[in-house]
Amino acid sequence: MQWTQARRAEKMNPSVIREILKVTEKPGIISFAGGLPSPRTFPVSAFSAACEKVLRDDGDAALQYAASEGLAALRALVADMLPWPVDPALVLITTGSQQGLDLIAKVLIDEGSRVLVETPTYLGALQAFTPLEPEIVSVACDGESIDIADLRDKAKDARFLYVQPNFQNPTGRTMPEARRAALSLEAARLGLPLVEDNPYGELWFDTPPPLPLTARNPQGCVYLGSFSKVLAPGLRLGFMVAPAAIFPKLLQAKQAADLHTPGFNQRLVAEVMKDGFLDRHVPTIRDLYKSQRDAMLAALTRDMPEGVSWNSPAGGMFLWLRLPQGVHAIALLPKALERNVAFVPGGAFYADHPDARTLRLSFVTCSAAQINTGIAALAGAIREMQADLPATGMGSEAPAATATL
Amino acid sequence: MQWTQARRAEKMNPSVIREILKVTEKPGIISFAGGLPSPRTFPVSAFSAACEKVLRDDGDAALQYAASEGLAALRALVADMLPWPVDPALVLITTGSQQGLDLIAKVLIDEGSRVLVETPTYLGALQAFTPLEPEIVSVACDGESIDIADLRDKAKDARFLYVQPNFQNPTGRTMPEARRAALSLEAARLGLPLVEDNPYGELWFDTPPPLPLTARNPQGCVYLGSFSKVLAPGLRLGFMVAPAAIFPKLLQAKQAADLHTPGFNQRLVAEVMKDGFLDRHVPTIRDLYKSQRDAMLAALTRDMPEGVSWNSPAGGMFLWLRLPQGVHAIALLPKALERNVAFVPGGAFYADHPDARTLRLSFVTCSAAQINTGIAALAGAIREMQADLPATGMGSEAPAATATL
Repeated sequence: MQWTQARRAEKMNPSVIREILKVTEKPGIISFAGGLPSPRTFPVSAFSAACEKVLRDDGDAALQYAASEGLAALRALVADMLPWPVDPALVLITTGSQQGLDLIAKVLIDEGSRVLVETPTYLGALQAFTPLEPEIVSVACDGESIDIADLRDKAKDARFLYVQPNFQNPTGRTMPEARRAALSLEAARLGLPLVEDNPYGELWFDTPPPLPLTARNPQGCVYLGSFSKVLAPGLRLGFMVAPAAIFPKLLQAKQAADLHTPGFNQRLVAEVMKDGFLDRHVPTIRDLYKSQRDAMLAALTRDMPEGVSWNSPAGGMFLWLRLPQGVHAIALLPKALERNVAFVPGGAFYADHPDARTLRLSFVTCSAAQINTGIAALAGAIREMQADLPATGMGSEAPAATATL
Repeated sequence: MQWTQARRAEKMNPSVIREILKVTEKPGIISFAGGLPSPRTFPVSAFSAACEKVLRDDGDAALQYAASEGLAALRALVADMLPWPVDPALVLITTGSQQGLDLIAKVLIDEGSRVLVETPTYLGALQAFTPLEPEIVSVACDGESIDIADLRDKAKDARFLYVQPNFQNPTGRTMPEARRAALSLEAARLGLPLVEDNPYGELWFDTPPPLPLTARNPQGCVYLGSFSKVLAPGLRLGFMVAPAAIFPKLLQAKQAADLHTPGFNQRLVAEVMKDGFLDRHVPTIRDLYKSQRDAMLAALTRDMPEGVSWNSPAGGMFLWLRLPQGVHAIALLPKALERNVAFVPGGAFYADHPDARTLRLSFVTCSAAQINTGIAALAGAIREMQADLPATGMGSEAPAATATL
């Protein structure tokens, strides 16, 4: 049988994270690898009550085909909860915010189109964009995200810049107000559309992050949001807010992709969100994740050998760590797994020129006690690798596998 | 702001059906337009019990991120219910079977790839394939689907043939055993992959349809199935069975599209399906739809003027009607709407050379009483148009709009 695959299929590869997650499913392992919210934050009883109510009061409609745009009540709730004036008619409910990335790719990317991303960037965005065969270009970043001068150098003819300003996956970094103002201004000047992805914005620990980029220029931005981190990922509910210039095409792409997002799930979330539930619920998630971030920072400070550095995220789920010279994350992973601890090597998150010494640690899935045990084990694995380094202290080159991450 | 859209976005258009459905939402209209299962068939109380059980016993897992392939228990149930030996490892759970079409398009279609479809064919497939810019070619069909000689003439270098052998949408026709055997043989001889879409196969009225094409050559076929018609569409649960040659790429495309189908919904359906629920439930759907098909056939026989012809589907949801010479479905629609009855003009379902005199009638959404009223009204509208025809009885040309359907 002659199965001729599309050229783009060659560019589809199994997610490194997915492969690592498979390994980490073995019992007893402490995994900092997954981006999994803590199940302790799932409002199971609120969902249970909502299921009963939705099926009792509105069962036929909840189980029927529905509009591709999404449930009117949920679109209105989304518009209401965003910190700038949003027309509910420009809210599109998506099957997780990953689907938003897929729709954006279909509507905005031709073969060879230039697409700008952060350094490093969200792996799921690379996976959504790559099959449409763009030229993906990394814009230089510092601890505050996009380097404006480098953006200016690379923006010519770019279709858009994809950016996560809040508690970015994978680095956990946040773009401060001054950088947002500068980026917004420069993007408008360049005529460069922004795709702003904000799955973690509500998970701030001490103070809310600055206003989204989209709030500053709604005509020039597509905004992606998600209920995965504030309610539960297993319902696959996300949303996008798009300017009228491209909303109709995104809607048509949505319709061709899966007709509509499950109407039952949309009703559940609308029901759960009523009466300000998120205002009471989300602070409990913030408190939990903050305490786990603190536990990880304390454990890192206590256990890590010299030469290891990391940041201190102001929210979200991830922390970014850099290994000592000569220690590469890919080589470290099997040694960490021997000690029953897992992480994701940072190379996976670079569109080009991966930094082999970086790795991503999630602090939300494991308890504080597990974090203590796991970080001690990870530190042990790093020390072991350092002990094996040539006495000169000069690092070996990155193993060949790194380049293909 | 410079929103440059992908070239494929030009090829995305609002679904005609979608636009018609908007019109038919006005109260009091009898709609034969939608492909909406009767809400009377939705097992609301079974879902309610399943919600309670899943959230009580397995709430954390049901609300967490999950594997892109789908829930193991549901994949096994799918493999078990299919009438040929299926490896659960080759079952991919999708967000409705529409998503299966989207994934197939991404994995198998390059710009300019030849893709074969029936005449007419499912509109949602055209919508899923078109953005990947194939050359879509209609294979001639009779009342038994694919004309084998025409297939042979058109198959060279085709990536696949897309076919709905059971109670096809839009025509309601079924491919009999002899035609399946011939098609399967010819496809194997040509090395032509088949994409077999079977959302309606369980909805047979008197005898089950012949074996699927995929059962005859699993290495040469992708099979798409759905829970939308046997349980409820609002959960958006479908599946595909694909040969090992392309399963991994479909899985990677799935992951990039929406990470995974809602795990909560997958657990609900697995829970509802336990203990042979479908064996008890589906016969009640068959009985209901058969009685409604019979009501529509009786009403058509009673009310339609001479020159109108239609088929008698052996299952499914749709019936295909052809208008008298000179009466075009597009022109008939506003006159039908004036009389509070709606349908979908058949032109929407042709990849090329639409037959302007055809239309699709769904017999499942409306009650028998509504069917009687609606068909009488439709017959009245047809008579009115006939009365307005030139006395020669020669038809006018199709209105210009037809071509763009």
